[in-house]
Amino acid sequence: MSLETLSENRSFGGTQGVYRHKSQATGTDMTFGLFMPELAEHARVPVLWYLSGLTCTHENAMTKAAAQQLCADAGIAIVFPDTSPRGDDVADDEAYDLGKGAGFYVNATQDPWKPHFQMWHYIVHELPELLGDNFAVDRDRMGITGHSMGGHGALTIAMTHPERYKSVSAFAPIANPTESDWGRKQLGAYLGSDESAWRAHDSTVLMTEKGYPGEILIDQGSSDQFLDLLKPESLAHAMMARRQSGQFRMQPGYDHSYFFVQTFMNDHVMWHTERLI
Amino acid sequence: MSLETLSENRSFGGTQGVYRHKSQATGTDMTFGLFMPELAEHARVPVLWYLSGLTCTHENAMTKAAAQQLCADAGIAIVFPDTSPRGDDVADDEAYDLGKGAGFYVNATQDPWKPHFQMWHYIVHELPELLGDNFAVDRDRMGITGHSMGGHGALTIAMTHPERYKSVSAFAPIANPTESDWGRKQLGAYLGSDESAWRAHDSTVLMTEKGYPGEILIDQGSSDQFLDLLKPESLAHAMMARRQSGQFRMQPGYDHSYFFVQTFMNDHVMWHTERLI
Repeated sequence: MSLETLSENRSFGGTQGVYRHKSQATGTDMTFGLFMPELAEHARVPVLWYLSGLTCTHENAMTKAAAQQLCADAGIAIVFPDTSPRGDDVADDEAYDLGKGAGFYVNATQDPWKPHFQMWHYIVHELPELLGDNFAVDRDRMGITGHSMGGHGALTIAMTHPERYKSVSAFAPIANPTESDWGRKQLGAYLGSDESAWRAHDSTVLMTEKGYPGEILIDQGSSDQFLDLLKPESLAHAMMARRQSGQFRMQPGYDHSYFFVQTFMNDHVMWHTERLI
Repeated sequence: MSLETLSENRSFGGTQGVYRHKSQATGTDMTFGLFMPELAEHARVPVLWYLSGLTCTHENAMTKAAAQQLCADAGIAIVFPDTSPRGDDVADDEAYDLGKGAGFYVNATQDPWKPHFQMWHYIVHELPELLGDNFAVDRDRMGITGHSMGGHGALTIAMTHPERYKSVSAFAPIANPTESDWGRKQLGAYLGSDESAWRAHDSTVLMTEKGYPGEILIDQGSSDQFLDLLKPESLAHAMMARRQSGQFRMQPGYDHSYFFVQTFMNDHVMWHTERLI
């Protein structure tokens, strides 16, 4: 696969790059951000996946999450994929929460989404392979996190493929999408009206049915403006009913913004580093 | 009130004492442990209440929780009350989980328990007053924690009297006693068959109805042999549904013993210290 460098900037002794490539999974060009720490000049380093939320591109967390210094100090890479396919021939919707910027980390089975909206396959299979082939990252030491829709993606992907992801955390995840307007609409559009197909993409359902073999860290702001859509209480109940190792933290006064994400990014980078190094 | 010193031992520069006094609340002699840090020679210090679990006396946590060094370093006192009235004229039951060693931190309204089992009043009102009159503790800076039945006591007392307790945490609390065999039996015995009277002594109910104005820390071991009786999932759901500030941690592999309590005592002492100093 060919890889085009759109930009590379020195950052905390390492390199913050933005790259574009043709994706077989989505049938489009895809752009991602990747921070490589200085340590990667000498050895393959663990890599943390950061999945962004609704309306985001590869750029939001890369510029606003303040993760680079933390990852530089820890000696791990962090990758910021896009949240959907892009391009004029890619289906879209007028709503901000369906179509472009809203891939929901699933493989669409329904038209008009099916041709390009294959974000699960892109994130889980294609992009890791590309990273391993082109950068000094160690695919045997991968962790995954994300925010909102990306927290949903991180949790569902990690619980489905624990052998690939040695650590997992989430910021304000969409925790029970099969029971939320952030979920029912999108899962219905992408996966069809048979709700049994949705269950593989609901963290609360997956937690109840299988959980995760390691520990899980979840942070949620108590002043998040989307709490009724995120449904943290459903996932917290499922975690504790399963006796899932980990912690669910309700952080007082924080909202859904990147100021919240940035505040707790250090805890999450440390969480993953302890499990990947 | 007269206070009899049963023992005093130098400990981490401070003093671990055991004291006995006549209690008006219980109508019996009551014994408690109190660790005073060296700092208390110069100023009144904050005080952390540690409520023990079923079968315990004042002695269990005092000898097995390893809290003294942490409290000495933090400059706070820690008090270890008994878990029930004692004495030949005090009602008891053959079961380990009713009667002596099982006061459940309520004021009994039913015979034969009513004359002496007034542990709520003893813990919330009488013993704080006695401590303030006899030791250099600052009653305006009190925190409360506890283990199992004591975690239940700490949470219910703090949510009922947040003006008295500036911080609260719990180790493996009995979290939903109105729905558990650790609760229904005792609340029925002490408070009678009208279950509406039980609700004031159920952390999940109190969390749903009022919560706590500060942050709450709860640790629970995932290998706790009593998980089905403790019901952490009920309280976790109530916390997150209320958006209660705090964190619920499921600690992998820990059981219900004092090895679990001791492991996380540092986190809890730090938690309280940050909110009391």
